[in-house]
Amino acid sequence: MEKKRFDYRKLKELATLIFQKCGYSQQDSETIADVLITADLYGITSHGLQRLNLYVYGLDIGRIKLHAKPRIIRETPVSALLDADDAMGQISGVQSMKLAIEKAKHAGIGFVVTRNNNHFGIAGYYAEMASKEELLGICMTNSEALMVPTFGKRAMLGSNPIAVSMPSDPYPFLLDMATAVVPRGKLEVYMKDKKPIPEGWAVGPEGKISTDPFEVNECFVKKTCGGILPIGGLGETLGGHKGYGIALAVELFTGILAQGYTSDMVRKVHHVDRSCATFIAIDYGMFGNKNEIKAYFSSYLQKLRDSDKAEGQARIYTHGEKEYLHRLEAEKNGIVLQEKTIEEIVSICKRFQISPAGYFQ
Amino acid sequence: MEKKRFDYRKLKELATLIFQKCGYSQQDSETIADVLITADLYGITSHGLQRLNLYVYGLDIGRIKLHAKPRIIRETPVSALLDADDAMGQISGVQSMKLAIEKAKHAGIGFVVTRNNNHFGIAGYYAEMASKEELLGICMTNSEALMVPTFGKRAMLGSNPIAVSMPSDPYPFLLDMATAVVPRGKLEVYMKDKKPIPEGWAVGPEGKISTDPFEVNECFVKKTCGGILPIGGLGETLGGHKGYGIALAVELFTGILAQGYTSDMVRKVHHVDRSCATFIAIDYGMFGNKNEIKAYFSSYLQKLRDSDKAEGQARIYTHGEKEYLHRLEAEKNGIVLQEKTIEEIVSICKRFQISPAGYFQ
Repeated sequence: MEKKRFDYRKLKELATLIFQKCGYSQQDSETIADVLITADLYGITSHGLQRLNLYVYGLDIGRIKLHAKPRIIRETPVSALLDADDAMGQISGVQSMKLAIEKAKHAGIGFVVTRNNNHFGIAGYYAEMASKEELLGICMTNSEALMVPTFGKRAMLGSNPIAVSMPSDPYPFLLDMATAVVPRGKLEVYMKDKKPIPEGWAVGPEGKISTDPFEVNECFVKKTCGGILPIGGLGETLGGHKGYGIALAVELFTGILAQGYTSDMVRKVHHVDRSCATFIAIDYGMFGNKNEIKAYFSSYLQKLRDSDKAEGQARIYTHGEKEYLHRLEAEKNGIVLQEKTIEEIVSICKRFQISPAGYFQ
Repeated sequence: MEKKRFDYRKLKELATLIFQKCGYSQQDSETIADVLITADLYGITSHGLQRLNLYVYGLDIGRIKLHAKPRIIRETPVSALLDADDAMGQISGVQSMKLAIEKAKHAGIGFVVTRNNNHFGIAGYYAEMASKEELLGICMTNSEALMVPTFGKRAMLGSNPIAVSMPSDPYPFLLDMATAVVPRGKLEVYMKDKKPIPEGWAVGPEGKISTDPFEVNECFVKKTCGGILPIGGLGETLGGHKGYGIALAVELFTGILAQGYTSDMVRKVHHVDRSCATFIAIDYGMFGNKNEIKAYFSSYLQKLRDSDKAEGQARIYTHGEKEYLHRLEAEKNGIVLQEKTIEEIVSICKRFQISPAGYFQ
């Protein structure tokens, strides 16, 4: 499929305009657009403008509530429980992390759990909100079940991503990972290319290894058994039970602490999402001089990157480095969009009587 | 090797007596013994009495400081930085988690980082200290480097375990896992059995997959390149880069925040350990009714255990279940000790003029 490149500023303007046409204020529209464009800038295409269509669809079917009023249910100086009221996930997400950051600045730690949320894009965006304020940021969310527990065959856990961000030089540290061995989007890439998936990514309806992405995808569509495996793959040999454990810990920190839907319920009832997410900000200045801690971390990351390479490998990465470099390149040369994504956006423009020509540059 | 079973109460008495003979107070000796015996009761033999010998040796060579005075360097209502002063890890570990628990009870969260620590046994012990007080407990530690980063071949990260414990019925939830695909102890089992290790556990001096546990062990002994892989194994296919990321996040939460040794320095300088650990307690009552949250979590764990099994599998576990069941069995039928461990303990008894006969029942 043909791919074209476009100026990210123009695309952000367009996405903002579309969400304004959907009924959001300019500020909220910019927030949603910024989360999406950031994913594209980082090279995480699956979570970028490619999904714009789905957010508009979510509003159409009432999964996302336009006039939602997220509210604080419980609060202490270090914590809050928010009910997102089915808001656009990016809006409640940014609100939640802002609250966590404010608490961290006053009390050292802010720990906010949010229920009745919607898909909020990349978890890393929220973790980075904290690290941009010179705080350590953590964000996790549960999501529609797609991961089977070790020795199981029914999808009971979401992709359950966890993101950790910490200031460092020359790149900010940003770990942003699904606790499933791969996100669902990877299956779709293999389906598109009609290629078998590696052994250890997924199981079919009987709970045995499947290398057929169509078979696995059908499990999700038909809600039969089968699904994606945890980090480490099948069984315990390469740590699959540990990947399952981390995913379960994410479930504890999100669905359980927020007393909302667990992943097995998300998107199962009346098409609502109602996932739960957690936003943590930590003022590491509690433990020492912030500049020194940041410099110490930066030097350790550099030691890792400089350490001996395995035969045939030219480079060791630290997390966030690839995203940072991708951003620099995409800011300069434009964001890559697939033809299909462009078509979808053009179609949305037509609906809202927006002339797209000036934005696709 | 022959294995025998012994009453855990008598073994705990003996271990306590040995640490008293080493110079510790009765209370401190009981603390150290309890951490070791708990590992044996959970079936984590590698971290049980099998290591008693190493702790006595650590005292002999001055790695562990008998009259250490752990002290608080910095403190806020939700946090503390402790300097363990090379204390026995179990003593500074228990002290650190007690402080975190106290803070959580007053301020909702207690986040304690401890540097200049020694090996403290199973991380799960400290996480469970919190869950026994109806709090959510987390414990992590860095440790002597044995794990290579993805695409690397030099061990730069420790086994970097992470433990999470949360009250639940009928078993308490306890995730206690190395972020290396396997701990070093597993290699030793394969060496003992003269069996090749599975592909994906370790790399040799060139950074290529090794299935020879002797070759990999020699990397540690000779401090050459080579080491154990992160959860997910080699490269990125089964999420090795994610396992590496989690291990690196543990390093951030321990060595970096505590501003102590990172794993690549632990046990490298003058034989001191000086690892760093983190102890977090969270009062989940901040978010809602504690009984309801616990009941909600318990029902979700039950749903996981009851969910459809993969073909050929009879059971799905949740984390902490195996340890709980092992404890029940071992409390009733005795702790299994290897002949070699018994010999080591008898030899220590001789040195301290203890008559071991009454304790090995």
